[in-house]
Amino acid sequence: MRSATPPPTTLDLHQAIALGTPKAIELWLDLVDDPVDRADQLTDLTREEVVQLARTIPPAQAADLVDTLDLHVAVDATRIAPPENAAAMLTRMESDRAAALLRELDPPERERLLAAMPTERVQVLRGLLQWPEGSAAAHMVPDVVTVQDSATAREAIHEVRTHKAKLRQDSHIGAYVFAVDDEQHLHGVVSFRDLVLADPDVVVHNLVEHDVITVEALTDQEEAAKVLVKHRLLALPVVDGDNRLLGVVTSDDVSDIVEEEATEDAERQGGSQPLEVPYMRASPWLLWRKRIVWLLVLFVAEAYTGTVLQAFEDELDAVVALAFFIPLLIGTGGNTGTQITTTLIRAMATENVRLRDVGRVISKELTTGVFIAAAMATAGFIRAWTLGVESQVMITVAVALACIVLWSSLIASMIPLLLKKLRVDPAVVSGPMIATVVDGTGLLIYFEVARWLLPELGG
Amino acid sequence: MRSATPPPTTLDLHQAIALGTPKAIELWLDLVDDPVDRADQLTDLTREEVVQLARTIPPAQAADLVDTLDLHVAVDATRIAPPENAAAMLTRMESDRAAALLRELDPPERERLLAAMPTERVQVLRGLLQWPEGSAAAHMVPDVVTVQDSATAREAIHEVRTHKAKLRQDSHIGAYVFAVDDEQHLHGVVSFRDLVLADPDVVVHNLVEHDVITVEALTDQEEAAKVLVKHRLLALPVVDGDNRLLGVVTSDDVSDIVEEEATEDAERQGGSQPLEVPYMRASPWLLWRKRIVWLLVLFVAEAYTGTVLQAFEDELDAVVALAFFIPLLIGTGGNTGTQITTTLIRAMATENVRLRDVGRVISKELTTGVFIAAAMATAGFIRAWTLGVESQVMITVAVALACIVLWSSLIASMIPLLLKKLRVDPAVVSGPMIATVVDGTGLLIYFEVARWLLPELGG
Repeated sequence: MRSATPPPTTLDLHQAIALGTPKAIELWLDLVDDPVDRADQLTDLTREEVVQLARTIPPAQAADLVDTLDLHVAVDATRIAPPENAAAMLTRMESDRAAALLRELDPPERERLLAAMPTERVQVLRGLLQWPEGSAAAHMVPDVVTVQDSATAREAIHEVRTHKAKLRQDSHIGAYVFAVDDEQHLHGVVSFRDLVLADPDVVVHNLVEHDVITVEALTDQEEAAKVLVKHRLLALPVVDGDNRLLGVVTSDDVSDIVEEEATEDAERQGGSQPLEVPYMRASPWLLWRKRIVWLLVLFVAEAYTGTVLQAFEDELDAVVALAFFIPLLIGTGGNTGTQITTTLIRAMATENVRLRDVGRVISKELTTGVFIAAAMATAGFIRAWTLGVESQVMITVAVALACIVLWSSLIASMIPLLLKKLRVDPAVVSGPMIATVVDGTGLLIYFEVARWLLPELGG
Repeated sequence: MRSATPPPTTLDLHQAIALGTPKAIELWLDLVDDPVDRADQLTDLTREEVVQLARTIPPAQAADLVDTLDLHVAVDATRIAPPENAAAMLTRMESDRAAALLRELDPPERERLLAAMPTERVQVLRGLLQWPEGSAAAHMVPDVVTVQDSATAREAIHEVRTHKAKLRQDSHIGAYVFAVDDEQHLHGVVSFRDLVLADPDVVVHNLVEHDVITVEALTDQEEAAKVLVKHRLLALPVVDGDNRLLGVVTSDDVSDIVEEEATEDAERQGGSQPLEVPYMRASPWLLWRKRIVWLLVLFVAEAYTGTVLQAFEDELDAVVALAFFIPLLIGTGGNTGTQITTTLIRAMATENVRLRDVGRVISKELTTGVFIAAAMATAGFIRAWTLGVESQVMITVAVALACIVLWSSLIASMIPLLLKKLRVDPAVVSGPMIATVVDGTGLLIYFEVARWLLPELGG
């Protein structure tokens, strides 16, 4: 028995690699038998250590190890390892993972590895590689348990027993048994448990649920993950246009897909393009490319504030105290907007807010906005007073803050819904983008209020 | 067969409720048999419609329906329904969900419902309610399949068959069979499949994996979810301090927990406190409370920019053109910082970045920062030129932009790691917070550069 926290080990992988003999690696594998601990130590290796490890480790152990690696590390390991090691690893990995790994290689590397693998395995992998990346079919495991619709429960269990090896250790793939006809058309599904617990003489046709939830091969992987989660399935059958069973997507891939999606959304929300590789593997050059585009777009949009301020140069010259509040006013406007868009975008991603809710969302946000505007106007008045500016400026700041908060609430609640309406993913609206939109327009509001209220400006 | 997209139905729930007879609800249940479609239509009801539905629906159907409801809607439905309906629903729901629902009620309401339920059920629910909210034990299903260590595989399967009803329809709970001794101490685990496929005469003790991954009852629910995902388990046993089996947390709860966590993080990143209820159920008053705290904190922090600007009043008076670039400079600093913190916080949440990586993170970010600074300085120079300001101001803007970008990169890469070091969740660092920190300090940099470079200011 052990708890979920890994026990301390006496030999870490850095040391084992430094020792430089296959025996040391084997000893480490004996000492560290938990896949999670192994993966932790593996992801911690430098590139040089991975090279050294790939050269030292015996092929059989290599295959076990690579399954626990992050995909990007596994690709590196495959490139570095001697070809017979790499081919042995790919032969023993889950086929969906092996195909994902092969996709990352250049075509000549890929062909060289495929040439070194058993024919049956190559057929399976080529079958998966033909599907576009990101489709449900590219993520599926083709080895599923099928039985004939006309078999009895007893015959079906015998069939499962025969294919035990095919199912490896994965409890997800084996959770369901699919009833098919001679041409692999999917007729129904039964859980392995119900099959076992049923009367052995009952015909499979009478046991299965005929109303099977399926996805088509070209369905987006995120859509497939959503269906798995919504229906709490362990495995989701993938079919072709004629309802022939091609394989299953298993629910243990869901957390990867969900996590990947959440990371991409978070990066977008922070105003950069998704990195697509783990942060620690991203070079400064890649980080630069993913960030500079949005920084420049936002810079150009923000540059408008210079034009606004230049247009009000006379006002600024006359009442220089107006400048003191510029960052405070536009900052508050941006913050108000960012709070709203992040909450709304998340609510739309989890399907709590839909397009038809547009009216309720805007009225909810404007009501909230009125109360926030009142609080911020008070805070603004107090701040202006502590800076010792003239009383008309205090009032100007308070009124402008209230207007900017309301304006920002309106903009921030409308833009995500508008994008959804235009079938653009609302997650592209980042906090920095909303802040930028509010900055320029907020300044216009501020100076118009000042003109209207300040006697020096003819108000 | 049907695809994942729900088929159009001819009677929607609004119409069925409006008809106002139990027959109409039964007809709707016949027509709409997919739990996801039902949940979609249920969450769309107004409070009045839920009241009407709870009064109309027969108790047996009510139990089926409530399992598909969002927890907050289910709580409302329980409050509104006649007590015998509500008790019937709670008796038939998954016990972890029923306990979660009871937790949301006031003590007198909770006791009234418990009093109307069968004794056996009440014991189970009281057992779950004793655990603190958010603990693994509060989320567990206590009905697991246990067999004696000394039984044979045949006897074990017979035991499972006997407890078929207890397992309901959930394939997660039934995926594993746990070997225990007379006092419920956990000795091992075997997948139901391996049990079925094993030689019927082999003793369970020789069949089970003894090295069971477990969590203790008081482990945090998010931690339990992480263990489930990392080890790709369908169900995770929860044990007491003496390693006695209390129940299992199933992996179908993981996506709920992961989604809840991602939503809270997104809300924090947007600079507000997590709502804790679905957005559409949040009142403007709740939204106001969750948002105003951070808005005021950020306002107070941002107010510092006013002090800085007042301190440089003479410089602003002498070269009013300096004011034109204030939003652009501090905006760019904030955007640079927000890009970094969101990426880093996400990388830390997915354990791609750890504390020991602090040196690599900062050197990576500063290298990237140098290139970004160069690009933004160029952009800033061009913008200043298009506004037609004097050449020293153009140079001031370019140099200040470069310095602000570098400063922001340093701050934004250090703060999340520093918080982690202090054992504070780095997700509390929102984009607005980084922007605020950079705003005040960025202005200081800007005016110091101006003093140094502009002849009018003695530079």
